[in-house]
Amino acid sequence: MKKEDYELVENYMLSCMEDSAHDKEHIYRVLYHALDIAKTEEGVDFDILISACLLHDIGRKEQFTDSAVCHAAAGAEKAYAFLTAHGFAERFAGAVRDCIRTHRFRKCAPPQSIEAKILFDADKVDVTGAVGIARTLVYKGEVAEPLYTLREDGRVSDGTGDGQPSFLQEYKYKLEGIYSHFYTARGAEMAEERKEAAAAFYRALYREADMAYKTGRKNLRDFVEGM
Amino acid sequence: MKKEDYELVENYMLSCMEDSAHDKEHIYRVLYHALDIAKTEEGVDFDILISACLLHDIGRKEQFTDSAVCHAAAGAEKAYAFLTAHGFAERFAGAVRDCIRTHRFRKCAPPQSIEAKILFDADKVDVTGAVGIARTLVYKGEVAEPLYTLREDGRVSDGTGDGQPSFLQEYKYKLEGIYSHFYTARGAEMAEERKEAAAAFYRALYREADMAYKTGRKNLRDFVEGM
Repeated sequence: MKKEDYELVENYMLSCMEDSAHDKEHIYRVLYHALDIAKTEEGVDFDILISACLLHDIGRKEQFTDSAVCHAAAGAEKAYAFLTAHGFAERFAGAVRDCIRTHRFRKCAPPQSIEAKILFDADKVDVTGAVGIARTLVYKGEVAEPLYTLREDGRVSDGTGDGQPSFLQEYKYKLEGIYSHFYTARGAEMAEERKEAAAAFYRALYREADMAYKTGRKNLRDFVEGM
Repeated sequence: MKKEDYELVENYMLSCMEDSAHDKEHIYRVLYHALDIAKTEEGVDFDILISACLLHDIGRKEQFTDSAVCHAAAGAEKAYAFLTAHGFAERFAGAVRDCIRTHRFRKCAPPQSIEAKILFDADKVDVTGAVGIARTLVYKGEVAEPLYTLREDGRVSDGTGDGQPSFLQEYKYKLEGIYSHFYTARGAEMAEERKEAAAAFYRALYREADMAYKTGRKNLRDFVEGM
């Protein structure tokens, strides 16, 4: 890919970014993860892959404005329109569109091409490890959701089966199980390397919070009459 | 303390809370940490301590609305006014006011009473460990600040000496050094128990992010002509 084409696509991406949990540094990390994975795969078209990585989240604003819109589908169409309007071949723009359309986990639309599988895996690597924990917590701040919820007995729920949204609930529902959904060996390896950092943080957060409530509520009963 | 007095103060606290990083669960954790610490200290007035813990952040809204306002000073006056208006003795309300006024780290206003020292330490324990990391990340989401910034050479800064706000900068500037500022032995011990969870998360986040940029930027130069 020529530098001027890279910068054209990069600048369009930058003009589309708004949501800070999916901010531009996420885009660069996904691009860098994808290049790492691509070096271990055969027959990769790097121009398609680089363009798809840069543009994979440009439909976020549309989804944020209307939650019925899928950012993968919206971003795929925006990318196709942008690329064909700027002189890229329809076949190239179509391949980029397919990568973006299938980068989000959906049973009905799995990634088909090697570039689509690499983008899918690279995006998932960025939900693993300490980076995945950090992005999830930042998002909880943006949408004002709590770290945890309390069980009926006043102890902290570890997130399993919770009906109410919280960080611990999202860890159990989404982050903990993500390590088994990879298409490439290198993607799975990168995720595995990061797994323990995320698990250790979850365990420490739950332990610290629950210990406070466990000892605290007992102590409170000793010092408040009738509690 | 009688249960009805506890609930009167608790309900006033709940009516004052707005900022989710300093949400009501933070208040309960601080109360529970404080009771844990207080059991190891002599001469503690638990009614003063419990009231001060419940009310210590009720000035947050005033600081959020006008950043020139110190939430400790504003909360201290609100607490005094509330307690005296509800029949608590002036001496009691004054002692609670003093605890709240000095709970924030300020060289010019260190905590004096044992209850004030315990509140100070209990509040600081909640900035340590995985809970401290989680609260800081949630706050970064609320104010839309990034996880890290990049150095001039394109690598991720570890936060040391950064001029721009980010999570890694706040870890280096505030979280990393907080473990040496405790008045009570039990407070220092609780913080020390949590220290490694926070340090391990910082190291993992920095390593994951920096590794992506280090290998990614090199790979990008191989696949984009002229980069």
